Amino acid sequence: MARAIGLAKKGLYSTMPNPRVGCILVQGDDVVGEGWHVRAGEGHAEVNALADAGDKAKGATAYVSLEPCSHTGKTGPCCEALAAAGVSRVVFGMEDPNPQVAGRGVQYLRDQGVEVDGPVLEMDAYYLNPGFIKRMESGVPLVRCKLAMSVDGRTAMASGESKWVTGPRARADVQALRARSCAVITGIGSINHDDSSLTVRENELLLENAVLAAEKQPLRVVLDSNQQLKPTAKVLQSPAPVLVVSVQAEPNPELLGADGQMVEQICLPGRDGRIDLRALVRELGQRQCNEVLVEAGSTLSGAFLRQGLLDELVVYMAPKLLGSSARPLFDLPMDSMGEQMPLEIKDVRQVGGDWRFTLIPDPEG
Amino acid sequence: MARAIGLAKKGLYSTMPNPRVGCILVQGDDVVGEGWHVRAGEGHAEVNALADAGDKAKGATAYVSLEPCSHTGKTGPCCEALAAAGVSRVVFGMEDPNPQVAGRGVQYLRDQGVEVDGPVLEMDAYYLNPGFIKRMESGVPLVRCKLAMSVDGRTAMASGESKWVTGPRARADVQALRARSCAVITGIGSINHDDSSLTVRENELLLENAVLAAEKQPLRVVLDSNQQLKPTAKVLQSPAPVLVVSVQAEPNPELLGADGQMVEQICLPGRDGRIDLRALVRELGQRQCNEVLVEAGSTLSGAFLRQGLLDELVVYMAPKLLGSSARPLFDLPMDSMGEQMPLEIKDVRQVGGDWRFTLIPDPEG
Repeated sequence: MARAIGLAKKGLYSTMPNPRVGCILVQGDDVVGEGWHVRAGEGHAEVNALADAGDKAKGATAYVSLEPCSHTGKTGPCCEALAAAGVSRVVFGMEDPNPQVAGRGVQYLRDQGVEVDGPVLEMDAYYLNPGFIKRMESGVPLVRCKLAMSVDGRTAMASGESKWVTGPRARADVQALRARSCAVITGIGSINHDDSSLTVRENELLLENAVLAAEKQPLRVVLDSNQQLKPTAKVLQSPAPVLVVSVQAEPNPELLGADGQMVEQICLPGRDGRIDLRALVRELGQRQCNEVLVEAGSTLSGAFLRQGLLDELVVYMAPKLLGSSARPLFDLPMDSMGEQMPLEIKDVRQVGGDWRFTLIPDPEG
Repeated sequence: MARAIGLAKKGLYSTMPNPRVGCILVQGDDVVGEGWHVRAGEGHAEVNALADAGDKAKGATAYVSLEPCSHTGKTGPCCEALAAAGVSRVVFGMEDPNPQVAGRGVQYLRDQGVEVDGPVLEMDAYYLNPGFIKRMESGVPLVRCKLAMSVDGRTAMASGESKWVTGPRARADVQALRARSCAVITGIGSINHDDSSLTVRENELLLENAVLAAEKQPLRVVLDSNQQLKPTAKVLQSPAPVLVVSVQAEPNPELLGADGQMVEQICLPGRDGRIDLRALVRELGQRQCNEVLVEAGSTLSGAFLRQGLLDELVVYMAPKLLGSSARPLFDLPMDSMGEQMPLEIKDVRQVGGDWRFTLIPDPEG
């Protein structure tokens, strides 16, 4: 199963909106076939492993990181393919996370006389697809917020100047976070200040499968309540989709003429003339986004946090001080220690000269 | 030598103002004697090891973490004792850090026909005594600043409320930092807000040799420019020495009547009615302080940092957010990224539920 999960990880940056899945076929001590899901619309892991094994699939045991699917989507149901190939036993990592179909694949296989065991290494299988699983269970994506700060918790100078807080290895790590995301959300303030393109750049990825990872760009989502985005912004210059969200019923006419650009405009009004972030997250769920990355300043990041919309914080800490007049990590006013927001530390590691903390906000909340 | 250094560490909390030193005596593969320096005025490591070995010292090799002393202080010179006992070879960890006596111990031993080798494991030997070494070389102590912050770099709420940012294990770790320090510096603001005693408490130390560590209390230094310290402050209630520093020529009459309290008052005026921190550090060097701990708020800690007086920062990071209106790590105004202060990360480790960073400020400065 560990090997099947390892194969699944090859699809970390490319299977969206599908889950990352790996499969191996074993006869006795020999692996006779292996496969992983590469891209939506192409063969699932099980089908690829069966093709790899050919005749040797008959009587084999299949280890699959996710319960084989029982429905017909762009490809046929995998549980039928496994049974048809004469696989005698299937071991799965975790159940199908869609509560309405969970267990159907297993049931079908058992009905066909195939022995089925699992879940096995369930947590590892889970961590392959936290966003897909959340979306299947709740309809909304996993929302992750990335922040780069100094030891004293500052993300930029008071002027907004922030190039660069962290080093090149941490920035490459952020590229990988973008690459595994279906959408990247930013605010008009960040666009106006940094003029980032928010694309995944193959040469900055430092990944083995950088070409595959950079092939599918995440949807760039710009929150622009009052339609201040200029047609010249870098985020609009690359041939990848952009979603501009405002509180105005009419689209921004300045962005309409941009020929050949994949720019879509929508309106999501909330209170006080601000975009309804909860509606935004639902909208991205409907657009089949599994993992969404917030790359924004302390105001927008703080708004997501205060509304309880963040599932994970990824904080890069650079070995420097930016001083007490610099910008805070989150715009998050509190008056007493009783209001403090607890975090759960999931992971701490060195990334180049910086340190990365993966945190879960308000674990008891 | 590693074993001699291990022995020296037993004195981490008790040898002050002397250095921590360990010694073993070896005949062939057998350790025939070992010793470490426990308290100033008592036997040095070499003398204790010789006493432990008795007749077996003759012809032995001595491993000593620091070059044996050549001067007569409260005890006789160790190099004479080693030669007199018939030790045939001495291996030392590092040279005597006092530039005026360095090498004399080695020279004496060689003159007596003793073979001498070293330095060996010099960096490990150095880290036993960073403060003692700095004081020998420059006359001033090593100054360490301890801070407890949230992930967003905040040390207290705007009101000053700060109990507790970190957990009990981190607070026990701070007790150990106090115990290894000759002095603990705080400001009147912290005293007025927290009313800490700043003592080393045996039952909070979580150390094997807690009794020995708590035996010698550090000098508590209260910076009280305008003599606001009240005789009822907790820092004045324990039977351990306190140094109150102000910019007033006359001592605070309120503190004079405090019977049986070891309170000394001095005046160190600087600019703008503030205490001259550089003069304070020199004063503590003259008082034979090796390591000094600053436990203060962001104003005083920031003043030490801005004046380049901090050798080391020990930052405990608790898994929580205290929000953007809470107090900063350091009072340290900066306007542009060009002013950022680089830090060198010496050590990162988990302490209970918190994380501890040991940092060197401005490593290129």
